[in-house]
Formats: sequence, C-alpha cells, structure tokens
Amino acid sequence: MRQNLVVDATRISADIEALAAITEPDRPYTRRAFTPLFLDGRAYLEARFKSAGLETRIDASGNLIGRRPGKVPGLGVLMLGSHSDTVPEGGRFDGVAGVVAALEVARSLGDRGIALAHDLEIVDFLAEEVSIFGVSCIGSRGMAGLRPPEWLERRAGDLTLEEGLTLVGGEPHTSGARSDIRAFLELHIEQGPVLETARLDIGVVTAIAGITRIEIIVQGRADHAGTTPMTARQDALVAAAKLVLDIQRLGLELAATPGHFAATVGEFEIEPNAANVVPSRVRMLLDIRAEQREDLDHFQRQLNSAVDAVGRETGVMIAAPRVISDNPATPMDRHVIEALETGCQTTGATYRRMASGAGHDAAFMARICPAGMVFIPCAGGRSHTPVEWAETADIALGSAVLLEAVLTLDDQLASPTREIDDGTHTD
Amino acid sequence: MRQNLVVDATRISADIEALAAITEPDRPYTRRAFTPLFLDGRAYLEARFKSAGLETRIDASGNLIGRRPGKVPGLGVLMLGSHSDTVPEGGRFDGVAGVVAALEVARSLGDRGIALAHDLEIVDFLAEEVSIFGVSCIGSRGMAGLRPPEWLERRAGDLTLEEGLTLVGGEPHTSGARSDIRAFLELHIEQGPVLETARLDIGVVTAIAGITRIEIIVQGRADHAGTTPMTARQDALVAAAKLVLDIQRLGLELAATPGHFAATVGEFEIEPNAANVVPSRVRMLLDIRAEQREDLDHFQRQLNSAVDAVGRETGVMIAAPRVISDNPATPMDRHVIEALETGCQTTGATYRRMASGAGHDAAFMARICPAGMVFIPCAGGRSHTPVEWAETADIALGSAVLLEAVLTLDDQLASPTREIDDGTHTD
Repeated sequence: MRQNLVVDATRISADIEALAAITEPDRPYTRRAFTPLFLDGRAYLEARFKSAGLETRIDASGNLIGRRPGKVPGLGVLMLGSHSDTVPEGGRFDGVAGVVAALEVARSLGDRGIALAHDLEIVDFLAEEVSIFGVSCIGSRGMAGLRPPEWLERRAGDLTLEEGLTLVGGEPHTSGARSDIRAFLELHIEQGPVLETARLDIGVVTAIAGITRIEIIVQGRADHAGTTPMTARQDALVAAAKLVLDIQRLGLELAATPGHFAATVGEFEIEPNAANVVPSRVRMLLDIRAEQREDLDHFQRQLNSAVDAVGRETGVMIAAPRVISDNPATPMDRHVIEALETGCQTTGATYRRMASGAGHDAAFMARICPAGMVFIPCAGGRSHTPVEWAETADIALGSAVLLEAVLTLDDQLASPTREIDDGTHTD
Repeated sequence: MRQNLVVDATRISADIEALAAITEPDRPYTRRAFTPLFLDGRAYLEARFKSAGLETRIDASGNLIGRRPGKVPGLGVLMLGSHSDTVPEGGRFDGVAGVVAALEVARSLGDRGIALAHDLEIVDFLAEEVSIFGVSCIGSRGMAGLRPPEWLERRAGDLTLEEGLTLVGGEPHTSGARSDIRAFLELHIEQGPVLETARLDIGVVTAIAGITRIEIIVQGRADHAGTTPMTARQDALVAAAKLVLDIQRLGLELAATPGHFAATVGEFEIEPNAANVVPSRVRMLLDIRAEQREDLDHFQRQLNSAVDAVGRETGVMIAAPRVISDNPATPMDRHVIEALETGCQTTGATYRRMASGAGHDAAFMARICPAGMVFIPCAGGRSHTPVEWAETADIALGSAVLLEAVLTLDDQLASPTREIDDGTHTD
C-alpha cells in the first residue's frame, strides 16, 4: 500500500529543502523566530499555502494559518500543523516536517477534490522553540489563551515581545484564544531512537510527558585534601555520587514499567572545585519526565528515602529535594489516537503507541480541543543539531496517516450520534 | 613536667599576637609574601631576633635568618624555622607558630646560657604559600638549590620574581644553596584533626606525603533528557559517579593500611550542564597523597581496572587516567625523628608518629640535610581560614620538644663516633 500513497513525496522534499536553505549561512540550520530569516521562511510558506488554494492569515497570536473551508458551515475546524522556527544550529526537520506534512494533507485533499465537512486549517505556530525572549510555544499558548500577559514585556535586546508579535503580524493586545477547533493533529520527528531501533514507521503519541525539575543541595565541609583523613570528611561529591546512582536505579526501575519515565541529572556543580580541597557543596538539578503522575509520585517518595539514607550514611547535610517546576503530563485524546491508528492500518504503516518525552505545541492545543500527534523516525534519535535527519519517505507516510485520520475525524465529528469527549481530555 | 617548661609561653603568645596584628585590616589574616605588610612582619621578626641576641641577615634566596654561633667552629648549622607569609584570609598560626617556636628555642638557650657545639640558625623562609607569582616554597627551594632559574621571570602584575627577591633583600643571581646544615627542624600546626581527635600533644612527622594529580575524562553522549530512553544513553555523569565511589572505596582501603593515604576528587565538571540534556562529558581531577610509593602504585593499578570496568558496564568512553603531576613523598630523617621522640618523652608530651598530608619547607630542606617536623594540634583541624586556632600552651610544649631535640642532635652530631645518615635520607 505504501507505493500508492495519496501524498506527494517530491513536494514534501522540495519544501523541506527550500526551508533548509533559509538559514544563517555560517551556522546551519538557524532560523529563529522573530528574525528576518524567520520572516523569509514564513513568506515561503505563505506562498506555498496560497499555491495550495488556502486562504492565509496571521492570527492575533502570530501564527501563520492557511484555511480550506468545509462544506458544512459552523461545524468548526480540524487543525494540522507544527512550527517553522529552529533552535540555533538546529536541524531541518524539527517542526518543519510537521508544517510541510500538514500542507501536503491540504494539497492532497485539493488534488483529489475531496471536500471535508469541517474547515481545515494548516498552522505554523510562532516560536515553539525557546525564543530570543527566553520562552517557548508562544503561538500555541496564545491560541489556547494561555500566554501570560506579562510576557509582552519580555525583552530581547531593544525588542519587547509586544513589538516582536507586531513585527510578525500578530496583535499583542487581542486575545487569540480559539473555541472553534474540533481536533488538532501534529506530525513531528521523534527526537529519540525508539522508532528507528524498533524499525517502526510511526509512533502514535499517547501523552506528552510531564516535566518536573527537582533541585538537590548537598552540603558537606571543605577540608584540606592532604591533611584530613578520609574517614574524617564530609565529602559532598561522594554523597552526591551516591545519589546520582540512586536516581539512575530508581529511574531505570520506573522506565521498565508501563508509561514513559526518564530521570536525568543534567546540571551538577561542585564547590569549591579546587584540586586540594574536599568538595563542600554540590548542587544538582534533576529532569524527570513522567507520563503517569503515580510514577512521579513514587519516584519522589523513593528519592526522599534515598536522600535520607545517603545523608545518614555519609554524614553530610542534604536538604529535602525541592521541586523547581512541575508541568504535568498531557494525555492525547483517545478518539484522535484511534483515528491515527486507523490511519496507520489504512496506509500499512507499522506503529506503536508511545509517549513524547519532549514538549510540543500539541500540549497547549490539548487544553482547548482533542489533540493527537504522530512521530516519525529520525536518524540516531538526533535532534537540535545540523545532523538531524528524517527520510522523505517517512515524512510522506506520516502525512498519509494524518490525511487518513483527518478523513476519519471529519466523518466522526460531523455525525451527531458519535460521542466525542470534547472537554474532558485535559485532566 | 609541663609546668616546668624551659620555654616562655608569654613571649610566644606576644609574638603571635603582634604578627596577627600585621594584616590587611579588612581581610584578616593576610600578609602575603612580597607585600609591604610582609616586610612589616619581617621587620618585627628581625627586631625580635636581634633582641634575642641573634645575628640577622637576609640570605640570597630571600630568607630571614637569625644566627647564634656555636662553640665548635666548622661543625655546621642546626636550623629551625618555618614561614611568616600567609595565604589570603589565612590564619595566625600556619607558619608563624613555627618561626616563633624556633625563636623561642634560641631565646631559651640564651636565657639559660647554654652554648651549643653547632651554630644555631632560626629561619623565616620566603613565600612558603603559593605566592603572588603563582609558586610556593621559594625560599626553601632556593636554600636547597632547587629554585628553577626560569622562575625569576615570573610576573605578578608589573613585578618580576627577580625584582621581588631584590625587594625583600635577596640576591636573585647568587646561589643560595647551602651545604653546611647538619639538621633542620620545623614546628607546624597539623592542619588536620588527627591530634585533636586523639587528644595528643605532638605529631612526630615520618614523611611529607607525595602529591599526585590524576585527570580522568569520561566521554559519553549528549542526548535529549526527555526523548532518549534511559536504557539507550551514554550518561557521562552516571559513569563518573561510579568512578567517584570506586575511588572513595580504594582510598579508604589504603587509608586503613599503614602509611598515610588519601584520595580526593577535588575538581569535577560536567558538560553541557544543561537541565534537559544527558551529560556528555565529565572531567575530574584526583588529588592523591601517599606516604608510600607502593600505595600509590597499587591505587593506580586498581583505578585503571575500575575505569575499564565502568567503561564496559556503562558503554561510555573513559580514557586511561592521566598523571598531571607527581611529587613523590619525602621521608623525614630517622635520627631526627628519634631525637624529636626523645624530646617528647623528656617534656612529657604525648605523641604519635604521623605523615604530613600537606607540603612544607621541610620537604625541600630534606633534600640537603637530615630534616624533621613536629605537628601541634589545631582546633577542628581548620587551617587557611581566619578561624585557624592553636593553643599557646601547645605551641610552647612543641617549642620545648624542639629545644630538647636540638640538645640531643647537638650532642650526637658533635660526636665523631655516632653514625648519622647524612646524605642517604632523600631517596
């Protein structure tokens, strides 16, 4: 069936290459939101949207939208999309693959003369990546009505976000919140090695994992490394090393149970960090990704026990782990998940359900409508690097899955007899 | 017997207080070598040396020396001393206690009208601490003929060490190497907690431990902390944490066997040190203090095995540990050790043999003559801090031990029948 895809891989490839060429020349691939290059990329996309017969606009939140009206007025919108901005020295596919796949769905529907009941909107969200203003998902937060008002005052050099929004065509003081969207679908590269390793075409995302950041401060005592016997020390590094291994063990245990879980000590600094002084203090920052809240709760209980045990064993002071930030997991909508799985079956794509360890615009869209995502493989799981790579055939297959899911959802959501949980999906 | 010491605690206390007052007022206790305050301290000491009837001079290496001629010309010199310079925000006793104790020995001999066979010299070595020129033990290296010629070009701002030596009264281009010293004795605060914990008066130093610095680079792979399953990572921090605990275990094993041994991971840095990225690289620097070369050799063999095992277990690359610097241990002279022990017995001081984990001028003096050291307790083992503290009574008792050892050595070394290993002590 994959030989007969209703999408055009050549068009997909051409769009991705064209956007890849719109980069800071001396550090590919860089096209950060709010920069002139970003506007160049947007101009390219807008032209392609128009070529596909879409009505284009920039919404109040600075998102580029292409619209294909449906045949039943008032049914609402099916939305597809992702983002075209990049991190500095990022890749060609993170975000772009999802925007181009969405565009290709609209083109394919047009080619085949298919009229959906719902309006279809293709979106390039503004500034999904951490932007020059230090914050991310500016466009999807805006569309969900969740962009904090005080963010308008954030600065990047002389520019405020308020001015930045105006620059890209948005309206900073108009609410961009939407209530007319019936479903949102996003294709994205996996940014991890799971699909490639398992030789699967598609990951149907069950949830966007929560991100919890926990700080641990280990307070020992600075002693002379030459004159203080090893038995008379309070070595903060030795205690912290024990905790790192405890965290690794706890994380692996939870990772082996159902539901995504990962624990990482990403930041780790010692003081005084001098060759001949016993380390007196360690600060570490944990990044915990949990699909299920009970996994996070279990981890935190076990972590507290480990901290107590290491403190007793080593004689150093370890303060209770402090939660710095805690963003809960966002489950994807089960009807959207099922529609995407049906799409995989129809197109012959091999697939598995999996959580997203990274954040995405879909997490904010899930606050206002049923949302779902598909992942496609990327080479070596590498992302946010110029070597990031996804095969055109994989993007095309993912686009076909999206298209099939759109057709399924268009039918289901147009039928008043079919029950859709529209509003209880964001618990 | 301690009530009847032949030294005067009041004089010792007065000298230490006087020198403590010669400090940068806003950051006590700071009297760094080559600064005007250092010269003020030297002026105080020179006056006290002269009051004690000593002939004073600055030698070619910039050391302040007070001389008390012996009654047998040509027998050579018994030398006592330490250093009067401090680290920034250091203490009142590190170095100073040894200079004042040496001076008190000379004063006591004078008070009692005792004429030694040998000449007695009291020394304040130049710049024992790491100086403004970035190097330490400048005076004792000079006296041992071991000051590297190229050091004269070292700079501290506009000042060269050549100019600095001239400033303090030395002669940079004259060799200060001595061959007339028959024994060198130094009193110093322990700078560790061993004597205080054991409630002992004196540590008779067996050796100044060697210092070996070893660098280990752990090379893993930077992966996204959210999207990379924990089982698919090469986490450099996890591997490094295992090594830290292996090093601790190996160190404790060797510390429990005869001979001082301590292993410390004092420097530890991770990359990229970002909350959401699996650590890709760790650099750690080990500080190894070993009294016995075989302990160091054993440690290095076991460390290499641990590195191999952790590399295999975790899948990260760990380069072979690299020795950055390697200064072997310096044994103290066994006749000097015995004379100091006799001094402890005579004065009623409780004592133990112990190694010095820190470096001292005595390590360089041992290259040119039989050398020995006594440690006295310091509060909490704290040193190089304004809270550094030693009891006057302990300094006085240590001075009395020095005095007894001087009397013993003066007798022994003046007798042609007594065999002294003078030249084979620096292996």
